[in-house]
Amino acid sequence: MKALYLKNGMLEYRDDYPRPTAVFGEALIRVSVAGICSTDLEMVKGYVDGFTGVLGHEFVGVVEAVGSAGDGNWVGQRVVGSINIGCGHCAVCEHDGAEHCPTRRVLGIHNRDGVFAEYVTVPIVNLLLVPDGVADETAVFVEPLAAACRIREQVMVKPTMKTAVVGPGRLGILIGKVLSLAGTEVTMLGRRAVSLELPAQWGLQTGLVDDFADDSFDFVVEATGNAAGFAHSMRLTRPLGQLVLKSTFAGKADLDLTKLVVAEISVTGSRCGPFAPALRLLVQGVVDVESTIEATFSLRDGLSAFEQATKAGARKVLLRP
Amino acid sequence: MKALYLKNGMLEYRDDYPRPTAVFGEALIRVSVAGICSTDLEMVKGYVDGFTGVLGHEFVGVVEAVGSAGDGNWVGQRVVGSINIGCGHCAVCEHDGAEHCPTRRVLGIHNRDGVFAEYVTVPIVNLLLVPDGVADETAVFVEPLAAACRIREQVMVKPTMKTAVVGPGRLGILIGKVLSLAGTEVTMLGRRAVSLELPAQWGLQTGLVDDFADDSFDFVVEATGNAAGFAHSMRLTRPLGQLVLKSTFAGKADLDLTKLVVAEISVTGSRCGPFAPALRLLVQGVVDVESTIEATFSLRDGLSAFEQATKAGARKVLLRP
Repeated sequence: MKALYLKNGMLEYRDDYPRPTAVFGEALIRVSVAGICSTDLEMVKGYVDGFTGVLGHEFVGVVEAVGSAGDGNWVGQRVVGSINIGCGHCAVCEHDGAEHCPTRRVLGIHNRDGVFAEYVTVPIVNLLLVPDGVADETAVFVEPLAAACRIREQVMVKPTMKTAVVGPGRLGILIGKVLSLAGTEVTMLGRRAVSLELPAQWGLQTGLVDDFADDSFDFVVEATGNAAGFAHSMRLTRPLGQLVLKSTFAGKADLDLTKLVVAEISVTGSRCGPFAPALRLLVQGVVDVESTIEATFSLRDGLSAFEQATKAGARKVLLRP
Repeated sequence: MKALYLKNGMLEYRDDYPRPTAVFGEALIRVSVAGICSTDLEMVKGYVDGFTGVLGHEFVGVVEAVGSAGDGNWVGQRVVGSINIGCGHCAVCEHDGAEHCPTRRVLGIHNRDGVFAEYVTVPIVNLLLVPDGVADETAVFVEPLAAACRIREQVMVKPTMKTAVVGPGRLGILIGKVLSLAGTEVTMLGRRAVSLELPAQWGLQTGLVDDFADDSFDFVVEATGNAAGFAHSMRLTRPLGQLVLKSTFAGKADLDLTKLVVAEISVTGSRCGPFAPALRLLVQGVVDVESTIEATFSLRDGLSAFEQATKAGARKVLLRP
């Protein structure tokens, strides 16, 4: 089958990749649409060590077959699927979920082939049905939207919190929207005016990060993934305020944590989120995800798709096998 | 009067320092005992910029006079006093307290003479009566014990949380004890066995920081104030766990925040705490603070006192004017 295969940080298009088979408890899914996210780009840049296999984790597809003991009713259903696959029987899986299982595999990220391919296998327990009214081009956003929703599981987002999202990119804008759905005034902050056009189109407040004084916000979400963004986010958070780090940093960074202690700020890391709430938001039609689509490529043109997605200010690039 | 005076990071003993006068709303206090803490040592090392004045902020004393509009009943009372002096009328003072007032002064730390002197003036609103049963040598620990109590205002400390304090020094041991009073098993972690003697005497679990595997604790308090301690603390905190930074770092540090995001850890900075709860613990006699006293010096021998306090593993050094 066709697939985008990563090895030693080099991405290649292959048309001879073996089609997987659904084993016990899993489903074989024909991928309809997949999305390229910043994590994929980082992995291709070699920032995330050691993954070899089919890249990609944002997808919507149709169940083609189920493995032994699988419920045949899944076959033919349109689904999305959460990306962490836990062992299913450790204390962490039991109490906290697969996301933090010490032996977890992660679709297209860690020890498990991903979705930039014609087919992928996913445990049935990870699947969620996509309602008929939700287009593929919308459903493919469930994974990043779930990551945005995760913040609302971690922080009590209050309608009166003065809130900023630093980094108005693909994920940042989803975060801004999700937070604004609490009735909260959210300001999307970027370094260049051009990056603020789409957030403004979405009706979010926007601003240049340097135009805001220290301590301007009660709650700040860092979504740039670079040390400068972290420094800005810390600077903008008021004493006793909250800061969420939504994107990983590449390696160590020269960081000043003095303000964290003196101003008693709370910083929370945030990763994968719950799919069902994200899908409910898409069903409600309150997040206009399709307006963030930049282009759609075939898998065969996957390397061009990555080139496009890497360009500064690129919106969401999709792949259709 | 006698005083230990800091200028350009140089500490000097003076016997000609002008005795202060209590102004409106303030009390003049004759200092009975004062304590040297790590912040004082950092300031003398020049790590904290720009303070000029009488050093010191941990004290117990007797009210000698009150300024205009002050209640005369305070005169002759034995008191401790919180160290942050807010403007008293901004929104921060009103909602969050003086600790985060943007124009606050802090006794012996920022824009306000401190307590390593015969006399100090403190706003009456900052004072707390010391009950008769509490000795001066105990009451002088209210300030650091309050800083330990602060953590319990920020984190819901549960009796079943596996908890570690990294850094078994003067403040670390108070933190360990305060957390253990929730019924929590607290392990005091140090780099050398000798540093664990006093914590063990106090009945706390102890261990060498390198002997513990990654993710060993639900809750970790960082009380070393150095980047290595931060790295250890992050390493030891389990996914979804909590980390409190109790001590400021000197400048920037080369830190890896990857785990914070991937493991979704929450980090909270923690500074000054509430005096009344700390005093209640001292009244109950459940924190044996006097066993941490290393030596008591006169103000005249203040520089020797600082030498002693700077030695590795030094316990609490007190000053009696």
